[in-house]
Amino acid sequence: MSASPTTAPSAATIANIKEKARLLSIYSMMSTTAAGSGHPTSCMSAAQLVAGVFFYAMKFDPKNANSNDGDRFVLSKGHAAPLLYSALAEAGVFPVSRVMTLRQLTSELEGHPTPLIHGVDAATGSLGQGLSVGAGLAIGARMDKSPTRVYVLTGDGELAEGQIWEAASFAGHYKLDNLTVICDINALGQSDPTMYQHDMEVYRRKFESEGFATEVIDGHDVAAVLSALDRAKATKGQPQAIIARTIKGHGFSEVAGKMGWHGKPFSKEQLAAAIKELGGTPPVVPPDPGKSYRRTDLPKPPDFPDPPAPEYAQDKPIATREAYGFALKRLGKVNPHIVGISGDVKNSTFSEIFQDAYPDHFFQGFIAEQNLVSAAVGLAARGKVPFADTFACFLSRAYDNVRMAAISRANINLCGSHCGVSIGEDGPSQMALEDIAMFRAVHGSEVFYPSDAISTERLTEHMARRAGINYLRTSRPKMPILYSKDEKFPVPGFKVLRQSAQDKVTVIGAGVTLHEALKAADELKAQGIAIRVIDLYCVKPLDGKAIAEQIKATGGRLITAEDHWPEGGLGEAVLTALAEVGVAPSRFKLIAVTKMPHSGKPEELVDAFGISARHIAEAVRAIA
Amino acid sequence: MSASPTTAPSAATIANIKEKARLLSIYSMMSTTAAGSGHPTSCMSAAQLVAGVFFYAMKFDPKNANSNDGDRFVLSKGHAAPLLYSALAEAGVFPVSRVMTLRQLTSELEGHPTPLIHGVDAATGSLGQGLSVGAGLAIGARMDKSPTRVYVLTGDGELAEGQIWEAASFAGHYKLDNLTVICDINALGQSDPTMYQHDMEVYRRKFESEGFATEVIDGHDVAAVLSALDRAKATKGQPQAIIARTIKGHGFSEVAGKMGWHGKPFSKEQLAAAIKELGGTPPVVPPDPGKSYRRTDLPKPPDFPDPPAPEYAQDKPIATREAYGFALKRLGKVNPHIVGISGDVKNSTFSEIFQDAYPDHFFQGFIAEQNLVSAAVGLAARGKVPFADTFACFLSRAYDNVRMAAISRANINLCGSHCGVSIGEDGPSQMALEDIAMFRAVHGSEVFYPSDAISTERLTEHMARRAGINYLRTSRPKMPILYSKDEKFPVPGFKVLRQSAQDKVTVIGAGVTLHEALKAADELKAQGIAIRVIDLYCVKPLDGKAIAEQIKATGGRLITAEDHWPEGGLGEAVLTALAEVGVAPSRFKLIAVTKMPHSGKPEELVDAFGISARHIAEAVRAIA
Repeated sequence: MSASPTTAPSAATIANIKEKARLLSIYSMMSTTAAGSGHPTSCMSAAQLVAGVFFYAMKFDPKNANSNDGDRFVLSKGHAAPLLYSALAEAGVFPVSRVMTLRQLTSELEGHPTPLIHGVDAATGSLGQGLSVGAGLAIGARMDKSPTRVYVLTGDGELAEGQIWEAASFAGHYKLDNLTVICDINALGQSDPTMYQHDMEVYRRKFESEGFATEVIDGHDVAAVLSALDRAKATKGQPQAIIARTIKGHGFSEVAGKMGWHGKPFSKEQLAAAIKELGGTPPVVPPDPGKSYRRTDLPKPPDFPDPPAPEYAQDKPIATREAYGFALKRLGKVNPHIVGISGDVKNSTFSEIFQDAYPDHFFQGFIAEQNLVSAAVGLAARGKVPFADTFACFLSRAYDNVRMAAISRANINLCGSHCGVSIGEDGPSQMALEDIAMFRAVHGSEVFYPSDAISTERLTEHMARRAGINYLRTSRPKMPILYSKDEKFPVPGFKVLRQSAQDKVTVIGAGVTLHEALKAADELKAQGIAIRVIDLYCVKPLDGKAIAEQIKATGGRLITAEDHWPEGGLGEAVLTALAEVGVAPSRFKLIAVTKMPHSGKPEELVDAFGISARHIAEAVRAIA
Repeated sequence: MSASPTTAPSAATIANIKEKARLLSIYSMMSTTAAGSGHPTSCMSAAQLVAGVFFYAMKFDPKNANSNDGDRFVLSKGHAAPLLYSALAEAGVFPVSRVMTLRQLTSELEGHPTPLIHGVDAATGSLGQGLSVGAGLAIGARMDKSPTRVYVLTGDGELAEGQIWEAASFAGHYKLDNLTVICDINALGQSDPTMYQHDMEVYRRKFESEGFATEVIDGHDVAAVLSALDRAKATKGQPQAIIARTIKGHGFSEVAGKMGWHGKPFSKEQLAAAIKELGGTPPVVPPDPGKSYRRTDLPKPPDFPDPPAPEYAQDKPIATREAYGFALKRLGKVNPHIVGISGDVKNSTFSEIFQDAYPDHFFQGFIAEQNLVSAAVGLAARGKVPFADTFACFLSRAYDNVRMAAISRANINLCGSHCGVSIGEDGPSQMALEDIAMFRAVHGSEVFYPSDAISTERLTEHMARRAGINYLRTSRPKMPILYSKDEKFPVPGFKVLRQSAQDKVTVIGAGVTLHEALKAADELKAQGIAIRVIDLYCVKPLDGKAIAEQIKATGGRLITAEDHWPEGGLGEAVLTALAEVGVAPSRFKLIAVTKMPHSGKPEELVDAFGISARHIAEAVRAIA
C-alpha cells in the first residue's frame, strides 16, 4: 500500500494498543478455561490485530455498536469469538465480567458470534463467509454515501474456502475502498498445517490479483499493525488486505506455534502460567452479576407505502419468473431500500427489469452464489432489503450461506427460477427438485410458490415487508393469469380454485402442477368426477386446520402434486401439517418427480416424469 | 510454461485440427438449431481448444472412452455440451448423426453432459465444479501410477465460482502434473461481460499463484493451441493452465464477440450463413437411425471380502463419529479402493484413524467442502470408493455438488459429524439441523443415522458396497454399545430395542434421541407405562409396511424424535412412508428442534430444545 499521509502512531498509542492486546489475550484464555471449551490459541494469534482495529482504527459508539453511522467489524474466523467479545467489552459495549459467561446456556456470548450480541452484524462460525458479509456492508455504505468503514478479520485456514475469493473478486470489481480485510496467517489449521503455512507472498499475490492494495506485516508488531491500518484507511479506489504473519497461541510459549492446540482451552495451571508470561498486572475480573446484554433491536425491513396495483392483461399468459422482475420494479417505486443482486442470470430471472428501472440499486453478482447470499446478509444488516436471484437449483450452492443467514436472523429475500422438470431441454443440471425441502428446513423461513403473475407480485411485496429468510420459487413456462389485481394472499394461505358440493378428491398443487390439476379437473368433470383444486402459493407456513377442512369436504381423499422430488416438499409439508392437527387423509397420493429427469420439451417431461394432468386424473380415479 | 522438448506440430497436423475445429463448430450450430435451444456461441469459442485436446493431445480408445487406461476430459463449462458431443462423434464414439438428436426426449445427448454418455465421467452444467472433478480423476490416476492425463475445459464466467480456486489450490498443493486446465476466455457472461473480460494476465496470475505452470495463448490459433498442449504435457511437478483468449461465437461475424447471444440457437438462415462463412465443404449429416448410445456400464463400487468383525468393549461408550474412523480402518484392510478425504476436521470426524493406518489412501482436503465432494466424484469415476468427511452442517456448503453427484450417478460416501444440538457449546453454526432433509432430497441416496458403534461400523461397510450417494450422520457425544458384533443391519430396516405386549406408544428415534427414548422408556416403565422404542438407523429408504406393523401394536400411537429441524427429517419421512401404505398414526407427535439453538452443555441443550427423555416421556403421557 502507499505511504500514509498521517503521522506515525505515537509511542503512547502503541503502548496502549499493546496493553489492550494483552488484555484481549488474557480474557480470551480466561473465558475459554472457564467454559471448558473454545479456541484460545486462535484468539491469541489475532490479539494485536483486533486491538489495533478496535482501539485505533474503528470509530463506533459502544452504546450503538450496530449503527450505520459507525465503522463495522466482521469476525470471519468466528471461532475467535472470545477475542471479539473481549474487544467489545474493553470498548464498553458490555462489562468484561460478561465475557466470562462465554458458552454458558444463559449467556448471549455464544461459542461463535451471532447478531444477538451488540456490534455483531452476522453470525459467523462457518468459515469463509465473513468477507462477503463485509462486502455487502461496504457496498451498502457506499450506496448510503456513508463514510464508514468495514473491517473483516479472517484466519488463514479459511482462505482455502472458495467463497473468500468470490468475495475478494466482488470487492475488487466494485472497488470497495471502504473495506479492509486483515488476514491472521498463523500457519496452523485444525488438523494439519495450512496449505501455504507462512508463505506470506502467496496470500499477498492472491489478494493483489483480485485488485486489492496489499501489504504483509508482522501481526504481533503493534507499530506495524497501526501503520498498516493507517495506510489502508488512506487508500482510495481499492479494497485493502493486510496479510499478517502471526503465531497461533502467541504469548504463551508452551503452545505458541505448535500443532494440536486448536480448539483446546487451557487448564487452570496453564492459564496462570500464560498470564504470568504475558507480563504486567494480572487483570481482576469481578463475578458476572448475570445481567443479559442480549440485543433486542434486531433490524426489521423498513416499512413502505402500498405500491400501485400490479397490471397484467388477464388473457396474456406470463411466466412467474418474469412477473418477479415486474414486481421488483413496482416495489422499487415505493421502497428505496430494495437492492437487487443476480448471479449472472438477470435476463433469465428477469431481475433485469428492476435493474433497468433502478440501476443504482442493482449489482451484478457474477457466477458466485455463495457470495451472492452472504453479501445480501451484509446489505440487510445495514437496513437494505436485498432480493438475490439465480436459478433455484444454484441456490443449493449457497445452502450453508442460507443456513448461516438464519442464525444471523438476517432479512433476506431469495428468488430461485427455473424450478423443476418444466424447464425442459436444459436438463437436470438446471432443474431444481430439492429447493422446497431445502428452504423449508431453514429456521424461520417462508416459502412461496406462486402459480400466476398476480400472486407472484403480491408475494414479492409480502417478502419485502417480512423479517427473516423468504424464498420465492418461480417457473420458466408462461402461465395464465388466475387472479384479479386486488386479490389478497394471506400467509399462511391457499386459494381454492375449483370447488363444488360433489368434490370427490382434493388436489393440491402449485406452479406447473396447479395448472395441470386445473386441466385434470376439466378432463374429469367431463367424465362426471368433480375435484377440488387448491393453489398452495404458500408452502411454509401451512395452516393444517384449514387444509383439514378442505379434505374433510372430500371425505379425506387427498392428492398433492409437485414439480419436485417427493422428499421434504409440498406433499410432505401438507401431510405433516395435517398430522399436527390430528388429521390424516383417508386416501392419499403424493405425486412428485421420482426418476432422474433428462432433456426434452417441457410438456413431454411433465408427462414423462409423472406430474401432468393425465397422471393427476389417473390418481384421482384410483382413489375417488 | 517451459519450452517443449518435442518438435512443433507439422503443417498437416495443424490443418487437420483446423478442419476438426471447423466441423465441431458446424455440428454444434446444426444440433442446437435443430433442437431449438442450446449454446452455440459458447461452443464456437472453444472449438479449436477442444479439437486440439481431442485430436492431438488426448489418447483414448473411442470404444472404451471411460477406461482408466485412457486420458480423460471434463467439460466444466457444461453448456458447451454440443461441442463435446461433436468431438466424441468425430473421435468415433458414436455417429455424427447422433449429435443431431441433441436435447430430444429419447436421446442420451442431453442439454448438459451426463455419464450416460460414453467419455463423460461426471455431469456438468452447474458451473465451477469440473476442475475439482478433474483433480479427483488426476489424483486417482496418480494413486494407480497411471500415466494417463486429465484435461478440463472451463469457461471464464465460471472462474468467478470460488470452487474453481479451491480446486486449483488442491491441484497445486498436490502437484497434479497430470492435470491440464484450458480456460476459454471469451469475455462475455450470460447477462453481462465477465468481470475481467479479456484481461488475460489476471487469470494467468491467479493460476500461477496456485502453483500452476501457465501460459496465455490465442485460443483460435491452432498452432499455438497445439504447442501449448505439448508444453503442458511435458511439464513436471505442477498442474498446467492454458489461458486462451477467445471470441464467443467465433467464426460467424453476425454474432462473434457480441452480447446477447448466450444460449441462443441460430435460425436456419443464420446457420446457413455461418456454415458458409466458416468455409470448406458443408458437411452432410445423414438422418439419425435412432440407435441409442446410452452408456450401460456405469461404474459400481468394486466388491470386496467381508472384513473382520468390529471389536468394541460392550461396557465402554464411544461416539459414533469415532466408530466411523475405526470402521474405515477395518474396511481398509480388505478394500484397497477406499480413499478418505477430510475438510480439515479429521481429528473431529476421526478419519485420521484411517489416515494413520493407510496414509497413502487419505488426502487432506483443507477447508473447502465444494472441492471435497466434487473431487470425490472424480475419484469414484476411476473406480475408487471415496469417503469424504466434514461436520454435517458444512456439507450444506456442498449441496450443489451433491446434487450434481446424483446426476453423475456417482458412487460417493459422505460422513457428516457433529449433528444437532447435542454437540453443545460450539453453538448453532456448528450444528447440523437440516442435513437429513438435505440428503433425503438427493436422488437415489441412502441416509444412515446410527446410534452406536456397531451399527456405525456395519452401515459404513454397507456404504462401501453400495452404488449411489450414501450419507452417514454421526454424533459428537459418546453413546453406549447397543448391539453385538454379529448383529445385521438390513437396508431398509430398523431395530426394536424395547417391546412388550403392553406397549402404549411407539417411539422412533436415532442417535441422541434414541438414547433419550430408552431413558424415557425406563422412566415410564417405573410409572407403569410401556413403550416400544425403535432405533431408525436407516432413515432412507424406509419400509412403511414394517413400520405400520409396529404402530399397529401400539394402537396407532406414534412419536418420532430427532436432533434436527422438523422439516424434511426423520418424522416427516416416517409419516410419509406410512401414508404411502395407506396408514396413518391414530395419535402422533413429531419431536424435533423448533427454536434456534444456542451454546450450552450438550445435556442442557437436548433438554432446553425439547428432545430429551423428559420431553419424550411427556409426549408419551399426552397420547398414551
